[in-house]
Parts: sequence; structure tokens; C-alpha cells
Amino acid sequence: MSAHEIHELGDFTLESGQVLPDARLAFATYGELAADRSNGILFPTWFAGTHEANEWLIGPGRPLDTDRYFVIVPSLFGNGLSSSPSTTPPPFDRARFPRVAIRDNVRAQHLLVTGRFGIERLRLVLGASMGAAQTYQWAVSHPDMVERIAPITGSSHTSPHNQVFLEGLRAALTADSAYAGGDYAEPPRAGLRAFSRVYAGWGLSQAFYWRHTYRDLGFAGIEEFLTGVWEPTFGDWDANDLLAMMDTWQHADVGGTPGFGGDTEAALASIKARAMILPSRTDLYFPPEDEEWSAARIAGAELRVVPTLWGHLAGGGADPEAAAFIGSALRELLARP
Amino acid sequence: MSAHEIHELGDFTLESGQVLPDARLAFATYGELAADRSNGILFPTWFAGTHEANEWLIGPGRPLDTDRYFVIVPSLFGNGLSSSPSTTPPPFDRARFPRVAIRDNVRAQHLLVTGRFGIERLRLVLGASMGAAQTYQWAVSHPDMVERIAPITGSSHTSPHNQVFLEGLRAALTADSAYAGGDYAEPPRAGLRAFSRVYAGWGLSQAFYWRHTYRDLGFAGIEEFLTGVWEPTFGDWDANDLLAMMDTWQHADVGGTPGFGGDTEAALASIKARAMILPSRTDLYFPPEDEEWSAARIAGAELRVVPTLWGHLAGGGADPEAAAFIGSALRELLARP
Repeated sequence: MSAHEIHELGDFTLESGQVLPDARLAFATYGELAADRSNGILFPTWFAGTHEANEWLIGPGRPLDTDRYFVIVPSLFGNGLSSSPSTTPPPFDRARFPRVAIRDNVRAQHLLVTGRFGIERLRLVLGASMGAAQTYQWAVSHPDMVERIAPITGSSHTSPHNQVFLEGLRAALTADSAYAGGDYAEPPRAGLRAFSRVYAGWGLSQAFYWRHTYRDLGFAGIEEFLTGVWEPTFGDWDANDLLAMMDTWQHADVGGTPGFGGDTEAALASIKARAMILPSRTDLYFPPEDEEWSAARIAGAELRVVPTLWGHLAGGGADPEAAAFIGSALRELLARP
Repeated sequence: MSAHEIHELGDFTLESGQVLPDARLAFATYGELAADRSNGILFPTWFAGTHEANEWLIGPGRPLDTDRYFVIVPSLFGNGLSSSPSTTPPPFDRARFPRVAIRDNVRAQHLLVTGRFGIERLRLVLGASMGAAQTYQWAVSHPDMVERIAPITGSSHTSPHNQVFLEGLRAALTADSAYAGGDYAEPPRAGLRAFSRVYAGWGLSQAFYWRHTYRDLGFAGIEEFLTGVWEPTFGDWDANDLLAMMDTWQHADVGGTPGFGGDTEAALASIKARAMILPSRTDLYFPPEDEEWSAARIAGAELRVVPTLWGHLAGGGADPEAAAFIGSALRELLARP
């Protein structure tokens, strides 16, 4: 794994009122911060990912060009690098880890960006999937600090269907009695396997499978693809960490930002950043229609539906054509005044 | 439950070569068989359903008008009424119940239709979901016996994505160690709950949930809908019965019919029945694109995509508008020479 650093948050008061002692925010940086601190880009991670999953867009000559920009990738709470159920001592260990909101992540990231780096304005905040939820939240919480946003294959609030999808994953994982309410001695392997296999149907589109794209990737059949790709994707994660991130995901809604009283539309209307919104045409749990709805409520927002059969995974660079589409959209967004 | 009868099949040799002793085919009939036996309609059941689930289309003045037609509804093997893991004695009880193919169901139904009722031609074979798989198989296995077919929200062969969806359900159910390889003393309740909650995301569309349609149905929120509708839908089924029906579903493919050597397209091209194919526009595991593919390979087939937000469930009469659409398509099909 490429290097990351830790920003110590000390006793960190969460939106719920609970205090997480000795909270830690993991982050990685790429490129050099300009002397005037004007070239910062923030790129939060997604569910069950670390900074490494974002690196496909970062580097010299890449869309997030490290010859020009200073890219900060903060890790989501629960991902095993930032404070997580698996890394936190009692009394907040395991399933006793407190509920962490998307806004808690954003507040920790704000402390990092302003306190550690002295950055007052960000060129761009972007992220895929749960990274998109953090992106929207940044634009709502810090309207004068964020110049541009690019939410990719994600949403401003977790839709009811998306919540049902997550409930299915949670039920599959915890159907394994080895989960033991989070106090497992050994990982709940059957539950993690079920989680992975349920996820496999959602992560890619019907058409991806219809065209046997898994064969192009070197897998003889469905079973080989499930055991070769999907089970390793989640099977080695800590179950409590997965559930903590899912809980953050499930409760995401910019409408909950103080001052908006639960009004998601009003929160979106408050966004001042130039928005380029990039859903995948075939995403089964963040369908493009939902992002049309969000785009229509942000002044000047542009919706570009990524043409791909790779479903949700298109936001992570897995499909070369989608990756190129997203890359050029980001270049164009960054070039705009 | 409305009445059903049993057709004894005796020792029934399956496509696999295994013999199921004392096999039983449950069925219900509606209306009167004409003296010339020319008014028969066959309407096989779907996954985790019995004849009662088909009754919304059957009755005096309804699309399958019992003043004119004699409607036979045979129960799928595994549904608890026809031979099933839960009803079969050792050595074929529980998970030892043999694999049953869609073609085995069709062969048993053919024995019922011809042997018990002396019917040589069927006005219509129709079915929703797994019922559609049986419908297609009837048209391929008995091209000169089936005048019309109406496959609803189903397919001629189980697509790779659909198989992944089923693998997720299977993994969720069996992640519960109480399943015990099928030899449970008590039902694997956590597994059945997980199965139900995973299914909830697939059975209806994203837009159904987005519009909070569950509120119109009297459920305050997602959780109430999951526990009030989805958990009862599958929670009281026998786990081995569910898995047996899923196994039948997963291996469905008209291409496997003897004489076609696995060539699904050739099997479809052999269909002589007038076909009216009715997928739901928002079905997440039998998407309309798949049925477009099948329709294009059957001479004279008509594809009518059901305009609904009720996803897969639209095929079962749950959405009044979809029900009316399907009903009038069936009336039209039956009126054609």
C-alpha cells in the first residue's frame, strides 16, 4: 500500500454528540502545495476503499495532474486507516464504535485542510460513490471554500432504494451467527461471503453480465468471477468496519446540514460551487435519474451521464472508456474559470 | 387457500436421469373444459407461489374468462404443493431432493394436460417470472400443441446477471449456520430474513422506492415495508423448497431442449406459437432488453413492455395499471386467430 499519514483529531465530538477519543484521520497527499496554497484538490475515499483506490486519476499528466495540483485523499472513518471499529480501543471498539455521519467526515477533513495545510479555498472536491456524498456535503457546508465539485456515481442523499440495498447487505452479513453482534473471535466468513455475493449483482449492470464481460477479464464463468473478484473485494474486510461505513452511507443527506432542517432541496440550492455531476448510466443503486434530480436543484450544475455498461464500478476506473470520459470531464471542469 | 388437486406421476424420471418416486403434481382448475377440449389454457406458477397467486387474472369476465376458458394452474415442483424437499420422504427429502429442470415441470404438466384432461391443443400458455420460463419451454417442447404464449416478466433462459442475483440470495440464506446443509431442526430464521431483505431491493424498482410508493401502501418507512411485506413473503417458506425452486430457475434455458444442443436462439426460432412477450420496463432481474433479444428470435413475436415502476412485481398484478395493461394484452392475444 502506498504511504499515508495520520492527522490526530484528539477528542472529536461527533454530530450525534458522542465524543470519539483520540480520533485519527488518515490521508495521503500527491503533488506539492503551492506557496499561495491555491492548488488544493480534495478527493475523499469511498466505501471499503483507501487512498489507493483513488490513484488512477492522480499523477503527472493525469486529470488530477500532480505537476499542477496538490491532491489530498482523506480516508473515510471506518476504512481501517482512519478511526474504525477495528482500530479503536474499548469502550468504542467493534460494534460499540459510534455512529459517524458524512458531516463528521467532512468536519475532520476541514480541520486537516485548513489546520494542517492552511488551505482556504479548494480548486475541486471530488469523489466516487460515498466519496460523492462527502463531495456534496463539502459544497453545502463550505460554500465559499469549494470552487468546483465533481460527484461521481454517488448522491447528495441516500435514496430509499439504496437504503433497501444496504439493508440487504447488512442482513446477509449478520445472518452468520459467527458475527456475534460484532464480538467475533474469528471473522464471520459465511456472512462476508454472502455480503460479497449479494454485492456482485448490484456492482455491475445486467448488460455487463449479459455480454459475458467477465470472460474478457479472464474468468471462465460466473462462479469464477464471484470467487475471483467479489469475494476478495470484501472478504478480507473487518465486518464491523464494513457495517460502520454502511451506517454512515445510509444516513447521508445534505438536508441534515444545520440551517436546512432536513430540506435536501434547499441544501442543494445553497451550493455555490461549479458542479459537474457524473453518474453512471447503468448504476443500479445510484441510478442517473436520482442525480438528474440533484443537478436540477444546483444553479449551473452540469449532468454528464457516463456511457458505460460497468454499472456502479464505472466510477472507480474499472472501465477504460468510462475512465477516459470521467478524466476528460474533470480536465474540462478544472479548466473552467 | 383455494382448493387444489393432485395428479400422481408415479416414479418420475427427471432430465438428470434421477427417478423421483411417487412424484406429485399439484394443480387447480377454473372454468369448464369444453366437450371438444378446445378451450384449455395453462398458467404455471412462479417462484415461491401457488395457484392462488395466479387467480387475479382468472374468473368470469376477467382476461382468462372462466365463462369461456378452462384454466389449469399447475404448481411448480418445490412449491410445497407439488413434490418438494419439504414433502418428500427420505432418501430424497430436504437438500437431497433431486435437481428438477424447467423441462421436468413441463413434462409433468404435459402428462396432466394430455393424460388427465385429454387436451391436445392449448389456446394459451402463460406465466409470470419462473412461469414465463415454463411458458417458453412449452412452446419449444410442444410447438404444435401451443397456439399462443404470453411470457410475463420472465425469460427463455436465465441470464448471467439473473444467476448472480440468485447466487446472492442463496449465499444470504445459507450464511445462517442454522441452515445446517438443509438438515435444520428449526427454520434458519436469520437466513430467511436476509433472503427476504436482499430480495426487497430487487423485486421493485429504484423509482418505486424513490417515490415512496410504500407509503401509499400504508407503510411509514423502509423498515416497516421490509418487515411488513418482504419478510412475510419468504420468511414462512421452507428453506430447502426455496433453494430447490431457485436451482430450477438458475438452470432454465430452452436451448437445453433435446435437439438444440444448447443453442438458445435455435430453440426460440423453432417456436410456432403466436407470442406476446410482456416484460416490465423496470424489472431489475428480467430487464426488458433481454426479452427484446428473445422476441427478435421468434417469428411474429410481439414485445409489449409493461409501463410500470413496480419492477418485477408488476407481473403479479400488484400494480393496478400494469395489471390492466397485461390484462388487455392477454385479451387481445386470445382474440387473435
